[in-house]
Amino acid sequence: MRELKERILKDGCCLEGGILKVDSFINHQMDAGLMMRMAEEFVRRFKGTEIDKVVTVEASGIAPAVMVAYLLDVPAVFAKKKVPSTMSGILKSEVFSFTKSRSYNICISDKYLTKGEKCLFIDDFLANGNAAAGILDLASQAGAEITGMGFLIEKSFQRGGEMLRSKGIHVESLAIIESLDNCEIRFNE
Amino acid sequence: MRELKERILKDGCCLEGGILKVDSFINHQMDAGLMMRMAEEFVRRFKGTEIDKVVTVEASGIAPAVMVAYLLDVPAVFAKKKVPSTMSGILKSEVFSFTKSRSYNICISDKYLTKGEKCLFIDDFLANGNAAAGILDLASQAGAEITGMGFLIEKSFQRGGEMLRSKGIHVESLAIIESLDNCEIRFNE
Repeated sequence: MRELKERILKDGCCLEGGILKVDSFINHQMDAGLMMRMAEEFVRRFKGTEIDKVVTVEASGIAPAVMVAYLLDVPAVFAKKKVPSTMSGILKSEVFSFTKSRSYNICISDKYLTKGEKCLFIDDFLANGNAAAGILDLASQAGAEITGMGFLIEKSFQRGGEMLRSKGIHVESLAIIESLDNCEIRFNE
Repeated sequence: MRELKERILKDGCCLEGGILKVDSFINHQMDAGLMMRMAEEFVRRFKGTEIDKVVTVEASGIAPAVMVAYLLDVPAVFAKKKVPSTMSGILKSEVFSFTKSRSYNICISDKYLTKGEKCLFIDDFLANGNAAAGILDLASQAGAEITGMGFLIEKSFQRGGEMLRSKGIHVESLAIIESLDNCEIRFNE
């Protein structure tokens, strides 16, 4: 998606270790208009896909997910990274974060991810695909089906995209970054 | 807001200790259409208020905040509950959560909350007003101004609303709950 790529070149920052910082418009401060246009692009790309619900992970997946859900007129649910004290009947999966070098749990109430539901997973980044794998695990525990996965930004030099596509999952990423070597942002054309 | 009150009566659950659970449509699973209509209601109620930016706290404030920001065509920023390793120049404030009986920090980059900015704070719940007080503290550190505060649900039997209104802040809550005694939901008319 051209607008997103141009914005990444304009406002994204490369940090050491293959980290792309987009916190001025995606995951801390958010450009709400861009979020809506990215949601519209997902709706175009997943046209024809059965979607009963949009699933994401807190916190930075919530904004694009709720906008996609709004456009599709379906509910959205976000996996929590802490098990809330007021929640029972929890589906849980462990996710390893390379960025933070530690594991965390993601969880969804078994009331909001259920057998037979067809779900579109939306998240901000696809890198090693660990959060996506955690969601696949939760869906499998629930008997739900992930009919597609949409990411704002994919780093194709990490393994997540390959891993998900090799499982036959329909993956769409709005900007695919091939390399961040020498702190230069290079897109996959 | 009538639609929200009816939905709370239909799908909200009372738990011991004055807790109202709305995780089937607000803060775990989200009704995206309702979120947009609530955002439209905030825009109506804050018509005439100067707003350069919408501010919220992760995670459950993000969905309504980003929709208000979309409608107003301004950016949104969410305070994080953990200090990210890739962030420098951080404004930080300690918030005590009665629900969880513990304190946590909220933080915003000093790049995204700046001197002179006029901000509308949006959050899902107003109870004791501790998160709101934390945001006022961050804004004061930044030299920004909170020109209004909008909450989906206010519990008027707790002190937050009184505390904020006594400071002269324009507070709007879409559903005000007067009592949850005996697990019965009673609205303020």
